[in-house]
Amino acid sequence: MSEVITPTSRTKLRRSPGRGNFDRATIYRILDEAFVCHVGFTVDNHPFVIPTGYARVGDRLLIHGSSASRMLRALAGEAEVCVTVTLIDGLVLARSAFHHSMNYRSVVILGQATVVNGEREKLRALRAFSEHVVPGRWQEVRRPSKDELKATLILSLPLTEASAKIRTGAPVDDEADYALEVWAGVIPLRLAVGVPVDDPRLKDDVGVPRYVSNYRRD
Amino acid sequence: MSEVITPTSRTKLRRSPGRGNFDRATIYRILDEAFVCHVGFTVDNHPFVIPTGYARVGDRLLIHGSSASRMLRALAGEAEVCVTVTLIDGLVLARSAFHHSMNYRSVVILGQATVVNGEREKLRALRAFSEHVVPGRWQEVRRPSKDELKATLILSLPLTEASAKIRTGAPVDDEADYALEVWAGVIPLRLAVGVPVDDPRLKDDVGVPRYVSNYRRD
Repeated sequence: MSEVITPTSRTKLRRSPGRGNFDRATIYRILDEAFVCHVGFTVDNHPFVIPTGYARVGDRLLIHGSSASRMLRALAGEAEVCVTVTLIDGLVLARSAFHHSMNYRSVVILGQATVVNGEREKLRALRAFSEHVVPGRWQEVRRPSKDELKATLILSLPLTEASAKIRTGAPVDDEADYALEVWAGVIPLRLAVGVPVDDPRLKDDVGVPRYVSNYRRD
Repeated sequence: MSEVITPTSRTKLRRSPGRGNFDRATIYRILDEAFVCHVGFTVDNHPFVIPTGYARVGDRLLIHGSSASRMLRALAGEAEVCVTVTLIDGLVLARSAFHHSMNYRSVVILGQATVVNGEREKLRALRAFSEHVVPGRWQEVRRPSKDELKATLILSLPLTEASAKIRTGAPVDDEADYALEVWAGVIPLRLAVGVPVDDPRLKDDVGVPRYVSNYRRD
């Protein structure tokens, strides 16, 4: 795949084009740091947006869920889909209300999803989900049974029509407003990891594994 | 408005109905804690999902952006819209790959947005955005000019067709799997606030206001 994803009329930014980014490595870094996406699809002419987990495998994005899921069944018919991933990095406080903003990194992917079939392919996809969210987990857990694989629907979306949008740094005020006696700057935000909570039925001799106690996203 | 929002065929959960919640207070608490939503809409039969800020004012959700925004212009024509708000509270690690999950609180709102017109109404909405994201900020900043108000499009969505979906607590494993020597539990996640970063052009005598240094969401 080429290092730059070709912009289309649907992914090109009309406003603030400086925030647009079609660099494949940049897009993939955002997809690899986040783990929740918002999936947009249409049912009976009405748009729906559902949050769900995902994993990137090469040049494809995988999403999964129950075979009974309305969303996944709607998408499995080669329906058009939009998958959006957003990381919020900070609140940008300008001297004027109008120029307040946020620092963020987002990716929008457009296309048609296809169903992942075959036990081996589905198992590989489930391993990718697991390793994307909690690297190191897969080797410890009980693997999916045949029935569990059957109950899982996995969709695959090519990363061919996609774009990132990124804002970083300080506020940008109107020149005259820099004279105002108002604090301006950025409140940084990030996803913080708390102390792991043992399951109430955890066996006495099982300690917290290192991939859990050292867990972080960035 | 009634204390419970009436479920519709579009908001009723078909799977895991125990996670569904139509209690207005519960839905509003989630909307008031988060500040970024994902807006789903349809253009030329293709779904789009765009992240943006919002505020709740009474029984309405307000979103705003540039009058030049594709999204806002598409929605201003009384188009159908889906607005989804998601808070991720933790990673749920079960003993089997299949039962891994996340703790989360999400709200899905369906409906038609209308444009907020009139300078006074628009100003009130912008104040609500500001106070929703950074309470205390509005009284300090330069208020929007007439031209800035003109450049801002504000949409209002009634909170009449909406539902929350919530998962909390420990993993739920198959009974046989509780015998496995595998750590299970929850990795808590939350939005953390960093140390405020002064704007490089900040005047020397302006300190960080308390509503910034004490900033938190929950």
